[in-house]
Amino acid sequence: MEIQAKSGISVAVLIIGDEILSGHTADKNLGWLAEYLAPLGIEIREARVVADDRTAIIVAVNDLRVCYTYVFTTGGIGPTPDDITAEAIAAAFGIEYGFHPEAKKILENHYGDQANEARMRMAKMPVTAKLIDNPVSRAPGFYVENVFVLAGVPKIMQAMMMSLDGVLARGQVRHRSLFLIDLPESKVAPLMTTTAEKFPGVSIGSYPKMLDGGGYENTLVLRGYDLAELEAAKAFLQQQLHASGAAITEI
Amino acid sequence: MEIQAKSGISVAVLIIGDEILSGHTADKNLGWLAEYLAPLGIEIREARVVADDRTAIIVAVNDLRVCYTYVFTTGGIGPTPDDITAEAIAAAFGIEYGFHPEAKKILENHYGDQANEARMRMAKMPVTAKLIDNPVSRAPGFYVENVFVLAGVPKIMQAMMMSLDGVLARGQVRHRSLFLIDLPESKVAPLMTTTAEKFPGVSIGSYPKMLDGGGYENTLVLRGYDLAELEAAKAFLQQQLHASGAAITEI
Repeated sequence: MEIQAKSGISVAVLIIGDEILSGHTADKNLGWLAEYLAPLGIEIREARVVADDRTAIIVAVNDLRVCYTYVFTTGGIGPTPDDITAEAIAAAFGIEYGFHPEAKKILENHYGDQANEARMRMAKMPVTAKLIDNPVSRAPGFYVENVFVLAGVPKIMQAMMMSLDGVLARGQVRHRSLFLIDLPESKVAPLMTTTAEKFPGVSIGSYPKMLDGGGYENTLVLRGYDLAELEAAKAFLQQQLHASGAAITEI
Repeated sequence: MEIQAKSGISVAVLIIGDEILSGHTADKNLGWLAEYLAPLGIEIREARVVADDRTAIIVAVNDLRVCYTYVFTTGGIGPTPDDITAEAIAAAFGIEYGFHPEAKKILENHYGDQANEARMRMAKMPVTAKLIDNPVSRAPGFYVENVFVLAGVPKIMQAMMMSLDGVLARGQVRHRSLFLIDLPESKVAPLMTTTAEKFPGVSIGSYPKMLDGGGYENTLVLRGYDLAELEAAKAFLQQQLHASGAAITEI
């Protein structure tokens, strides 16, 4: 099954780490990646979180890389024994896992006589992988075909992503416009349907949030590739909402 | 492929919603679910985030429900047209989608003459589903076989989860013990290996965090089903770390 964003480039993010699944650490990479990639016309269509488990990583990578234009993995490429992502990616592609000559040189230069077995383990990966520069802590990420293997530490992951400028293709940007309303979802629903029928290129989402003092706040989000159609749909929907007595807050 | 937690009950969480994938909203349900389920011996082994897309939901549900003891979905069961989870779950199981008699009664009683088409839509689901009580806003969740369909709004999702007490089986609890150290991961790595070899029932993770002022803080997390073995492994690892000059902070 190939899942494509309508006109953008489709992406899956694979988050690797027991600490995310166990609730010990909240993932901060998915939101950052979404915000960073959207203006490039690259749209995240799926995210998965799997444990530090070799089989789980291999299955997920092989499933996702045939469905999406790009797969970005985060986590599990450090120097400790629970960091098994690089070996699992090699196995997923059937490529030899060992010292990458270029990565080895980078780490030897960086660590000098502070190099040790654990640190040099970060130079082990699929031997034919292409490297992704890591200006923060040197140990590189890498990519094989359409699978990009990034660090889990947000600052390093972000720096690696920015190193990929020029490597990733760019798609059509999906624009987004959002505002708050004080109407309950049940009153908004028929207006959303009318608007969606009139502007078929625009999708509309309604995201209610319970307020601490009781009651709801509702965010309406419109998305579309054609900015003029998006603006027209928004104006039309807001006009309908005004007529229903809603107070609209732009955010 | 069946992915089982070693001795616990294995679970996948399916988070449904464009707003999570687009970075507009950060998911808060995964962490809560992990913390809530762990003491019941129910372990989250995978999480997926998919868009408000019928095919994507169907594919994910049918993939996950054969791999895990339970699947919990969050999001997409409200009254607006972008809420398509209930219909997609019916399609995934090949069950008729329509008004659930019991759910319809609950909503008619709750809304009285405030009932409208959008609100009553929340009584539509796979017609043979079993209901999950929603003490917060009444519109029920539901389950079919091992797939539990919950709201996306955290307070409602949490109340629904608690309604499932007595429905879910309980497994063996996987205990966790964690502490902070000031040693770099490369120095910890060989001690992690020695400890893991000596205590095969215990898994050890190392989670470095970059500090704003520069430098790293490293959290070591030990996990295991046998509490005595876990404590022994922790004591052994801490002894080794002390001998390497590490400062240990219990958290």
